[in-house]
Amino acid sequence: MLLVTGSTSTLSTLLSAELAEVECRFAAELLSDLSSVNSLVTHVQRYHGKMLRPVLVLASGLATSASPPALTEAHRILATVVEMVHMATLVHDDVLDEAEVRRGGATLNQLRGNEAAVMLGDYLISHAYHLCSSLGDATLSQLIARTTNTVCEGELLQLANRDNWALDEPTYFEMIRRKTASLCGVCCRLGARLHGAAPAVEQALYVYGEKLGLAFQIVDDLLDILGQESTVGKTLRRDLQKGKLTLPFIHALSHASPAQHRQLLDYLQFASDDSSPTHSSRLRTGIETLLDSAGSIAHARAWAHRLVEQAKDSLSILPLGPARDLLLEMADAVLTRPS
Amino acid sequence: MLLVTGSTSTLSTLLSAELAEVECRFAAELLSDLSSVNSLVTHVQRYHGKMLRPVLVLASGLATSASPPALTEAHRILATVVEMVHMATLVHDDVLDEAEVRRGGATLNQLRGNEAAVMLGDYLISHAYHLCSSLGDATLSQLIARTTNTVCEGELLQLANRDNWALDEPTYFEMIRRKTASLCGVCCRLGARLHGAAPAVEQALYVYGEKLGLAFQIVDDLLDILGQESTVGKTLRRDLQKGKLTLPFIHALSHASPAQHRQLLDYLQFASDDSSPTHSSRLRTGIETLLDSAGSIAHARAWAHRLVEQAKDSLSILPLGPARDLLLEMADAVLTRPS
Repeated sequence: MLLVTGSTSTLSTLLSAELAEVECRFAAELLSDLSSVNSLVTHVQRYHGKMLRPVLVLASGLATSASPPALTEAHRILATVVEMVHMATLVHDDVLDEAEVRRGGATLNQLRGNEAAVMLGDYLISHAYHLCSSLGDATLSQLIARTTNTVCEGELLQLANRDNWALDEPTYFEMIRRKTASLCGVCCRLGARLHGAAPAVEQALYVYGEKLGLAFQIVDDLLDILGQESTVGKTLRRDLQKGKLTLPFIHALSHASPAQHRQLLDYLQFASDDSSPTHSSRLRTGIETLLDSAGSIAHARAWAHRLVEQAKDSLSILPLGPARDLLLEMADAVLTRPS
Repeated sequence: MLLVTGSTSTLSTLLSAELAEVECRFAAELLSDLSSVNSLVTHVQRYHGKMLRPVLVLASGLATSASPPALTEAHRILATVVEMVHMATLVHDDVLDEAEVRRGGATLNQLRGNEAAVMLGDYLISHAYHLCSSLGDATLSQLIARTTNTVCEGELLQLANRDNWALDEPTYFEMIRRKTASLCGVCCRLGARLHGAAPAVEQALYVYGEKLGLAFQIVDDLLDILGQESTVGKTLRRDLQKGKLTLPFIHALSHASPAQHRQLLDYLQFASDDSSPTHSSRLRTGIETLLDSAGSIAHARAWAHRLVEQAKDSLSILPLGPARDLLLEMADAVLTRPS
């Protein structure tokens, strides 16, 4: 759960209780009559992390609720749906990562793991749509499916730009807008829509979620460069290995001195050719120093700050109060994720 | 297209025209504003084969239509949806196959291909749900999503039984009922439902599609053992390499003499360990001879025949006429696929 304090603590408690309900619905939806399916599904339960996307649905619902703040069953269901969608993308991302790690040599077990992950991701996405359709409102199903269309386009755009050392900022932003920010935006829109909010409020919350999602992804990309695995809780230094340029690298490649530019291209080529899951500390230090001296880390941080401010600005349409404060705090929390 | 003759030829012409409409809707739904997405999507256009699932929706629609036989736009849309669902499973199956082929050594290109296939499959399934939701009827979305849940369960059940040389017939039938027959059944149910058919008619058509789907899968499994790649049009001899026991093997393992049983286990182990995409002709001949002498090929063929008869029997609820004849011919055609 995201940490919130002060006047928002009552709402935060309410949110925690609602998230527990979401986890129940998550498990119930995925339950099969086949034990072999259930034993695979248990593997993904541990993937529940911050549950950012369900939190966005629920918190946006609270912020657009009549007083006292309350949520509907549809909020809980859609919060579960977006978590399932997100988890499907994580599971399918793992397939891709495993493929990379396997370059050194494939074992039968690894291949089995891959196949199970493809099918399990499909099972998750299918159940997400199934659960969504249970609400009996085709416009909600359409909104979710249109969003997953966009998320897939973002992933495909990223794939098409692998090892593209000439990637520019507009393409990077288009990529993360589709693959990450669109789902966050829809989460917030849904939270408002389920309370029958005015179109302008729905739209403002979409913008809030989208900007927050963009900032979240930039911070995530920074953590991949600067973070400690023990703190961040996932394998890092994947982006370069997969030939994925992120904001600091894009900035450095277009702003560094010719010598730095050559050095950075060498690093990129080396990192992308490297078959080990994490890079050597020497390579890491070299990259960090170069990005720092080119002002590229600061550039990415400034973008994240700017986007969080824009996210917060879009909330001015909401009445003052603890629910709005909660959304403001959540936006700020994106910038202070432990590295 | 499936071949039909005689009194059904007018309907067959109508069906061909409708299938062309389905292909148009297929392409239109997948069109993106991103050229990199479109260039990937063009790869799957060539996957259109017999289009069995759209044909089942359309032919069931014709068989439950008022006179003269006609279809609605919803028939065309749902025919497109089921083709998209089917193609997503094909694309994701390719990921798994490629993984096998790659055992000898992975190249970067192959890995890229795999990653693109995972994402492209996700893009297809997302658009299938999106297109379905455009009909504005949440019960249709629910029916499709419930079916894809079942298809995924079938795939996961199959995965859990890899290299299980003790697989029994009930489990095999449960597997193919879920992974193949459930979608065929729903195709026929949808064709009837969109014309407002009585529940008993809907159910009879579901049974028709399900039995036809089971027979289709058994014949498909037989083709994997006995077929020529040039005729069948896809890579064969995959099942054993992936440790997938099919009906003839299940029969042979429980009916062969002890010596044959030992020999067959040796073959299975060898085929599953073999890294080449197709087995040696000596291994193939050995397997075919053994299955034939144990009566296992005949056993599987008898099952396919029985299921086709059951499929045809379930059509007795329909009025006599060319549309019903078309469905009868389609069931028979399952048994005469070129090997």
